[in-house]
Amino acid sequence: MSQAIAVINAGSSSIKFALYADGREGNLLFRGQMEKLGVAPRLHITDANGEVLVDREWAPDAIDHHDGAQVVLHTSIELLAGRKVSGIGHRVVHGGTKYHAPTRIDPEVMRELKALTPLAPLHQPHNLAAIEAIAAAAPEMPQAACFDTAFHRNQPELAQIYALPKELTEEGIRRYGFHGLSYEYVTGRLHELTPWLAEGRAILAHLGNGASLCAIKKGQSQATTMGFTAVEGLVMGTRCGSIDPGILIYLMDQHGMDARALETLIYKKSGLLGVSGISSDMRELKASADQRASLAIDLFVYRIVREIGSLAAALGGLDGLVFTGGIGENDHDLRRRVAERCSWLGVQITETEGSGERRLSHPTAAVEVWVIPTDEERMIARHTQEVLS
Amino acid sequence: MSQAIAVINAGSSSIKFALYADGREGNLLFRGQMEKLGVAPRLHITDANGEVLVDREWAPDAIDHHDGAQVVLHTSIELLAGRKVSGIGHRVVHGGTKYHAPTRIDPEVMRELKALTPLAPLHQPHNLAAIEAIAAAAPEMPQAACFDTAFHRNQPELAQIYALPKELTEEGIRRYGFHGLSYEYVTGRLHELTPWLAEGRAILAHLGNGASLCAIKKGQSQATTMGFTAVEGLVMGTRCGSIDPGILIYLMDQHGMDARALETLIYKKSGLLGVSGISSDMRELKASADQRASLAIDLFVYRIVREIGSLAAALGGLDGLVFTGGIGENDHDLRRRVAERCSWLGVQITETEGSGERRLSHPTAAVEVWVIPTDEERMIARHTQEVLS
Repeated sequence: MSQAIAVINAGSSSIKFALYADGREGNLLFRGQMEKLGVAPRLHITDANGEVLVDREWAPDAIDHHDGAQVVLHTSIELLAGRKVSGIGHRVVHGGTKYHAPTRIDPEVMRELKALTPLAPLHQPHNLAAIEAIAAAAPEMPQAACFDTAFHRNQPELAQIYALPKELTEEGIRRYGFHGLSYEYVTGRLHELTPWLAEGRAILAHLGNGASLCAIKKGQSQATTMGFTAVEGLVMGTRCGSIDPGILIYLMDQHGMDARALETLIYKKSGLLGVSGISSDMRELKASADQRASLAIDLFVYRIVREIGSLAAALGGLDGLVFTGGIGENDHDLRRRVAERCSWLGVQITETEGSGERRLSHPTAAVEVWVIPTDEERMIARHTQEVLS
Repeated sequence: MSQAIAVINAGSSSIKFALYADGREGNLLFRGQMEKLGVAPRLHITDANGEVLVDREWAPDAIDHHDGAQVVLHTSIELLAGRKVSGIGHRVVHGGTKYHAPTRIDPEVMRELKALTPLAPLHQPHNLAAIEAIAAAAPEMPQAACFDTAFHRNQPELAQIYALPKELTEEGIRRYGFHGLSYEYVTGRLHELTPWLAEGRAILAHLGNGASLCAIKKGQSQATTMGFTAVEGLVMGTRCGSIDPGILIYLMDQHGMDARALETLIYKKSGLLGVSGISSDMRELKASADQRASLAIDLFVYRIVREIGSLAAALGGLDGLVFTGGIGENDHDLRRRVAERCSWLGVQITETEGSGERRLSHPTAAVEVWVIPTDEERMIARHTQEVLS
């Protein structure tokens, strides 16, 4: 009987999932998400062609997180129409220093991943809860964990440490980096699309609601803008990116803020939302005539350009720049502005229209510029198949 | 009767001072410091040729901060041998957003500078206490405040703001930058030594126990690595430089650290000292065979190189690199290592020996590299003379 690989990305208020036909490069069967749990629950599922298979909403209190997961499970079984799930792959945000590759779940692995929760308290528990729920309901189901940090684990040590006392570094306060599954997928596509660049020095820009940059050389991560947490680096939808750590001390002293208040500030109230006072959504900001909206976008661009310079220094030069993520794939104007301010590095783009994977750079430009839509779920499915086979 | 301008840089445990003959470009009469107050008080004064005029030590409890200031005052009057002080210039670390130039002190200015204390709680009170002590003892003595932040106040707005809620930005949580008097002095020398570069795009590297970089274009600051406080940016002797703000939240949650503990950690126990576990002094680290000492130096270099890339992006390219500060002026090996990793920018140095102001770059190199010893006291003396005349 034909089988399927399931991919699950469980967050605090959403469950994203995708089902692939089993096989070396399985085809997508369908993908979807149960989102806004607790606020305005909605289940949305599409097939490989983007056709809507399910679109259903609930009243805020009608279903909780557990019910939501059950709905996802039963709806998926129905849509699989008799096809059996042979394994489940999970996106797990944090693999610490030890897990530098996808890993089959067993009780020992689960213990170690739980111990990493303090490193990602907002995400790790939700990722692991999904694994445990499935293990309880179907103990024989093979499961794999795919880590957002793994791609960065072979970076040079200097890119991974902070100038903090060595005891803290040894405890695990290091620069982990995230978006690793996205960067791994894009790097794989680069190898197929432009092997020369994949062997060279490239900066990958994953720009979405979360945003980071990654410098790769010969396909290996050399440095990335996110650090110990996913708040460092670029300006994001609601995250501040890099700020002076002294600011937190000032806010504790002058505003009496505690850890939770600081967390809310830097994760939820800053970034594009904080600067503009309007929205965390780039599309809304671009539609606004408010000067603060322009300022937020300008700052988003400025900080990308500065970090591209920093990563180019890590690489000792630049051969290519690749855009991915919601904004990176779709926002032509944003790409144009970044490219213009990177002309000193040899970046020059000519593309004005288009969609999907494509080269944007002028044929004579020193630096190749590409758009490569990311597909983290496919990366997880591929890893899961390898790990579980 | 001939007169003199006094320069005072009052810190928490030291008072640095210099006396200049009054006149448009006054000659140094003598300079000195009362250091290690409370620990091992020592007064050391040299003349313009570096000849030692005074070198005196006290037992730790023999004199307090107030006594120390009195000793400095009386010793200076003695050394001035009848020459009258016509004005006193102070280094004041923080001028906030308003004070973008040296300013004559009056009660209104003092009120405003005191209100900035929360922005620099470790330094501002000591700077202002010295001004007040003199105002109390000699109410008619003209005094001027010269700010370490002023040189950066005309930076583009995007270089000065964080992606924090606009209310916090308006409250003053901005990137101020420091070492401004040093950068202003070096920029002035650049105009005399190499007008072409002074009109171009240069990165100034002030590397000492405190360390920062500043990008200038046409002599104007465009961006700098220090931010809201003097802890952001590069790795320093005991300061961590840029770190993920999420680290502070982790330390509050997992280690129960409060604001003072965090302050001590990031200002006093990190940087070269924290990474090496040996010393905050570059010379001691270079003399050590310990692997952690090498790691600390490697990280110091790596982070300079990364930030040079970031600042080159702010400038849209690079025409020159200038080293100053204790390490920048004297550590040939450090300069060589930085330059090698900046070869992708066109940096290439040939100098192996020497001292004082000089060009290090290869005559055909695309980027001019210089050493220009800084002189913040002379900058303050010059400003004081202008402001008070």
